[in-house]
Amino acid sequence: MSRPLITRQPLPASSKVYHSVADHPDIRVPLRSIALSNGEHVTVYDSSGPYTDPTADIDLSAGLPPLRANWIAGRGDTELYPARPPRAADDGGSGAVPGRVESLQRQPRRAVAGANVSQMHYARRGIVTPEMEFIALRENQRCSAAWQAEIETGERRRRLQGDARGARIPAIITPEFVRREVAEGRAIIPANINHPELEPMIIGRNFLVKVNANIGNSAVTSSIDEEVDKLVWATRWGADTVMDLSTGRNIHTTRDYILRNAPVPIGTVPIYQALEKVGGIAEDLNWEVFRDTLVEQAEQGVDYFTIHAGVRLAFVPMTADRVTGIVSRGGSIMAKWCIAHHQESFLYTHFEEICEIMKAYDVSFSLGDGLRPGSLADANDEAQFAELKTLGELTTIAWQHDVQTMIEGPGHVPMHMIEENMTQQLEHCHEAPFYTLGPLTTDIAPGYDHITSGIGAAMIGWFGCAMLCYVTPKEHLGLPDRDDVKAGMIAYRIAAHAADVAKGHPGARYRDDLLSQARFDFRWQDQFNLSLDPDTAIRYHDATLPKDSAKVAHFCSMCGPKFCSMQITREVRDYAREGMARKSAEFRALGSEIYVREVD
Amino acid sequence: MSRPLITRQPLPASSKVYHSVADHPDIRVPLRSIALSNGEHVTVYDSSGPYTDPTADIDLSAGLPPLRANWIAGRGDTELYPARPPRAADDGGSGAVPGRVESLQRQPRRAVAGANVSQMHYARRGIVTPEMEFIALRENQRCSAAWQAEIETGERRRRLQGDARGARIPAIITPEFVRREVAEGRAIIPANINHPELEPMIIGRNFLVKVNANIGNSAVTSSIDEEVDKLVWATRWGADTVMDLSTGRNIHTTRDYILRNAPVPIGTVPIYQALEKVGGIAEDLNWEVFRDTLVEQAEQGVDYFTIHAGVRLAFVPMTADRVTGIVSRGGSIMAKWCIAHHQESFLYTHFEEICEIMKAYDVSFSLGDGLRPGSLADANDEAQFAELKTLGELTTIAWQHDVQTMIEGPGHVPMHMIEENMTQQLEHCHEAPFYTLGPLTTDIAPGYDHITSGIGAAMIGWFGCAMLCYVTPKEHLGLPDRDDVKAGMIAYRIAAHAADVAKGHPGARYRDDLLSQARFDFRWQDQFNLSLDPDTAIRYHDATLPKDSAKVAHFCSMCGPKFCSMQITREVRDYAREGMARKSAEFRALGSEIYVREVD
Repeated sequence: MSRPLITRQPLPASSKVYHSVADHPDIRVPLRSIALSNGEHVTVYDSSGPYTDPTADIDLSAGLPPLRANWIAGRGDTELYPARPPRAADDGGSGAVPGRVESLQRQPRRAVAGANVSQMHYARRGIVTPEMEFIALRENQRCSAAWQAEIETGERRRRLQGDARGARIPAIITPEFVRREVAEGRAIIPANINHPELEPMIIGRNFLVKVNANIGNSAVTSSIDEEVDKLVWATRWGADTVMDLSTGRNIHTTRDYILRNAPVPIGTVPIYQALEKVGGIAEDLNWEVFRDTLVEQAEQGVDYFTIHAGVRLAFVPMTADRVTGIVSRGGSIMAKWCIAHHQESFLYTHFEEICEIMKAYDVSFSLGDGLRPGSLADANDEAQFAELKTLGELTTIAWQHDVQTMIEGPGHVPMHMIEENMTQQLEHCHEAPFYTLGPLTTDIAPGYDHITSGIGAAMIGWFGCAMLCYVTPKEHLGLPDRDDVKAGMIAYRIAAHAADVAKGHPGARYRDDLLSQARFDFRWQDQFNLSLDPDTAIRYHDATLPKDSAKVAHFCSMCGPKFCSMQITREVRDYAREGMARKSAEFRALGSEIYVREVD
Repeated sequence: MSRPLITRQPLPASSKVYHSVADHPDIRVPLRSIALSNGEHVTVYDSSGPYTDPTADIDLSAGLPPLRANWIAGRGDTELYPARPPRAADDGGSGAVPGRVESLQRQPRRAVAGANVSQMHYARRGIVTPEMEFIALRENQRCSAAWQAEIETGERRRRLQGDARGARIPAIITPEFVRREVAEGRAIIPANINHPELEPMIIGRNFLVKVNANIGNSAVTSSIDEEVDKLVWATRWGADTVMDLSTGRNIHTTRDYILRNAPVPIGTVPIYQALEKVGGIAEDLNWEVFRDTLVEQAEQGVDYFTIHAGVRLAFVPMTADRVTGIVSRGGSIMAKWCIAHHQESFLYTHFEEICEIMKAYDVSFSLGDGLRPGSLADANDEAQFAELKTLGELTTIAWQHDVQTMIEGPGHVPMHMIEENMTQQLEHCHEAPFYTLGPLTTDIAPGYDHITSGIGAAMIGWFGCAMLCYVTPKEHLGLPDRDDVKAGMIAYRIAAHAADVAKGHPGARYRDDLLSQARFDFRWQDQFNLSLDPDTAIRYHDATLPKDSAKVAHFCSMCGPKFCSMQITREVRDYAREGMARKSAEFRALGSEIYVREVD
C-alpha cells in the first residue's frame, strides 16, 4: 500500500500540550493550546491525536504507539492468546485480497477466564482506572483559575448556567465523577483492550457532547488510503469517535489500518461483514458466522459494535405502511432474516452470548435503531418506539453483565417531535447515553443534509443526547469525500458546542466569549485562530481584504473603513461610563468623528 | 452601466405557471411547477419573479413591468406629483457619481391630502385589495384536492398538525383571512405604491415563514451590476424580500436599479444614507436630513424602512458592560447622536411625523433592534429588552396611523434563551410580526454562520417568528458574493421550511413526503428536482456515479449495487402485507436475493 497523504501540520497558532497530574506521569492528556495576540493561551479539547504533534514520529504502516498498553496489562486480568486464524472470506467480495499486513498485526488480548475487563465492571467495583483519570483531565479542558472563579460569581454564573434539561454537570469533572457516571450506566468509555492506541474519551449526558464521523468504503468506490486519510482528517476537525462502515473489498484489512492508526474509538456494524461472508444472502446469516465476526473484530480492537438486536420479528409488519420503510442497512438485513425464517432475530435470542464476548474485550454496545424513520412522515411511529423499548430491555441485560451500552436514535424527525425522542429514550433506556444520526428536520434539501440535520442535532444535544453522528452534504447522494467529511464535522461541532452552551456546560461558553471579545477588539488573527475552522475564516476574510494591514485594521469589508459600529460602540462605552452630562460637552468639543483613519 | 450577467433559466424540470381566479383575470399568481417522472406536477411557492419565465422580456435598464399599477391607480386615492429634486449628496461618498438613469425614473405617486394608502388602512375598513387576493392564492401554493383531502383525515392529519405554538394557520388561506390578519396587525404586506413591480407577499405568523436576503455595496467593494445580479440570484433561491444595505458610492442609483428590477419587496435602513449626506458625522444628523431621506426613498419605492427609534437616550448606558457593545450600525449611530446631544433620539421624538410619511406611500415599519446582542454573552439583557418594550409602544402608535409594522430581533442568542425572545416579543409588541437575524447559537464558527444561525432561525421560526433574515458564510468576515448569497439562502429556506413543518403549516410537509417517496422509489431525477437546490444535488450524485444509467438504478454510491436497504424494505413490505406465515415459505422457495442486478 502506498502511504496516504495525511494532513499533519498544527492548526494556526496552535500547539499540542499535554496535561498530567503529579502522581500519574504516564497519563498525558493532549490539549490544543491556541496562542492569542495579547499573550494569553487558551487550551481546547483536542481529538486529533499525535498527528498534529510535530514531534510525533508517524508511520502509518506501523501504527500509533500503544499508550494504554501498560495500563491494560497492569490490571493483570487479561491474557495474550493466538488470534482466530484468518479466513479468505474476511476481506469480503470476490476481488483481489491484499492479505494481512504483517506490521499491523498484534497478538490479541482477552479477559482471563471468568474475568470482566469492561470499564463499567471496574467502575462498579469502585476502581478508578487510568482511563477515567485521563478523561477527567480531558473534560475539564481549560485549566484557567480565572475562568473558574468567574463562573462561580453573580450574574455571569446565572447566564452560563444554561438550561440543563435534567443533566447534572459539575463545574469540575473529577475522576470519581467519571467512575460514578460509568458505574451507573449514564456514560460509556469505548476502549477495547485491543485498541491500546486510543486516547480515552467518554460519552454521556453529563459531559461534553461528542461527535462521531462515519467513514468506510463501499462496493462502488474508495480505497484504504482514502479511508485512513479520512480518519486522520475527521479527527483533525473534531471527530470524537469514527465509525468504519466499509462494505466493499478489503474490509478486514481496511479496518486493520484504521484501528492501528486511530487515536479515537472506532465503531463498526459487524452484520455488514457477516453478510459479506455469506455472499450477501441475508437469510443465510446465522449466529455462528455473526459470532465469528464479533470475535474477529474484537481481536482487531473495535471499540463499539452497532448491533440491531431490537429489530424483532413482531415489529417488522409495523413498517409496512411507512413512506420509506426500513432505511437502516442493519435493520433491513435483520428484518429480512426474521421474515425469511419466520423466527425471532438471532441477535435478540443470543444477546447474552454477545454480552460474554463484549466483556472479554471491553467492547461497548451501540444498540442500533434498525427501525429508525427515514423520512419525516415516519418519525416517532409505532415501529420506532417498539424497538426503542426493546433496546431498553436489552440495556438492562447488558448492564447485568457490566457491559457498557449506548442507544442509537434517529434519523428524520421534524423539530416539534424531537424532544419526545429524548424523553422516551431516557425513560425506556434508563439514562444510557443516546447517540443520534442528526435528526434531519426536513427531507427537501439533499446536498445540504449537514444543515437540515445540524438543526436537529443541536436541539437533541441540548435535550440530552450524548453523541451526535454527523451527516455530510453527500448524504443520500454519494459517498463523502474529504471535503464532505470536513463540512459534516464542522456542522456537527457547531451543533455539539451550541448544545453544550445551552446546557450550561461550564467549559463551553468561554470560547464564544473569547472570540467575541477578540472580534470587538479588532484582533482579527485571534478571531480566526479561536474559530472552529481558522483556514476558512482567514480565506473568507482575505477574499475581500487580502492585505496584511487589514488584519490589524479597525474595520472590515462589510462596512468599510469609514463606518464601524464596533468603533462607535467603544466611544459610546467610554462616554457612558464617565457620566453622560459631563462627557457630552467634552465629546462635542473634541469634534469627534465617526470616520476612523483609513489603513492602506 | 453594462448589463449584469443574471441567471434566468428555469430550475430543472420546472416551469412558471400563473394561477388566477375567475373574477380577477389581472391577478396572476406565479408558481413553479415541477414535472415529476411519474407524470405528476407539483407546484411550489416561487419568489423568483419574471426572470425564470422564458417568455418574459427582461431589460434591466428599463425595469420590470408594473403589474400593480392599475390596482394602485384604480383605488383613486393617490396622485402623481413632481419628485423631490435630485441632490448631489444623494449618491453619497466623494467619488464619481453616475447620475440618475433616465430610463429608470418614474414620476412618484403619493396619497392625496388626507388619504392613507396602507394595506392596513384598507384592511381595517373591510376592503380586500387585489394584493390580498394575490397573497391568498400564493400562500395556498399547491391546489391539489387530493392533498387537501388527505390532510383532513385521520392519523396523517394528526402528524401534519405539528405544534403551532400559538399560531392559528387555516387549512385554506382566504382573501378575507389575509385581510383580517393585516387589519389586526399580525401580518404586513410590504408594498410601496411606488414599487408597482412587486409580486405581493405577506409576513405574519399565520402564513409561511419568509426569508430576507441582505445585499448592498460597501465603501470597500461591490458594484451596481453585482448588486442587481445578487438581487435576481437571491430571489431565484427563495428570497421573499431583499434589503439593500448599501453604504458606499452610488447609493441612490444602486437603489434605482434594485427597485425597478425587484419582484420582491425591498427594505432599506435610511439612516445609512442620511449619514452619508452629513459626511459621516453622526452628531450632525438631524430630523430634516432624515426626513428628506425618507421621502427620497419612499418616492423610489422602498417597501419597508428599518428605523431604530427604540434606541433611547436612557438605554445607551445599559450597553456599557457588554462584551460587544452595540453591534447594529443604525443603533450605534443613534446611540452616538443621543449622547453627543444629550437628547432623546429624533427618531423617537418625530415618530408620528414618520408615520405620516409611511402612510402616504404605504411604506412598512421594520422597527430596528439597535441594541440587539452581538455575542452570546450579551443575549437577552436589560438593554435588549428595554428597547423591545419601546418598540411595542411605537407599534401601538404606528397602528393608530394604520401603518404596517414589524419588529426586528436578534442576533446572537444561545438556544436555551431563544424562546424568551419570542414570548417577550409577542407580549410587548402585540403580535406584530417578528423578523430576526438568525439568531446565531454560538460565536465560535466564523465562516459557517449560516449554520450557527440557521439552527436558531429554524427554532425561532417554529416559535412564531414571521421572517428570518439570512446570514451568509461571510458574516463577520467579508461582503457576501454570489456563492455566499446562495449558501445563505439555502440554509434559510431549510430553516423556514423546517419551521413551517414543525408549526404544522398545511402547505409545508407535502414536499418532504413527495421527495421521500421519490427517494424510496429510486426516482433519482424527482429527488433532485424536488429539492431546494437541484443543481447541487445532481452534482453531488454525479461525483461518484456520473452515468445516466445510475439515475434510474435501484442503488446509490453509499451502498453500491449489491446492497440496498431500500430495496430490501420493499421486499419486506410486500411480505408483511400478505401475511407473514404464508409468504415466508413462498419467499424462501423463490430463493430471493438481496443482490439486485448491477447496472452498467
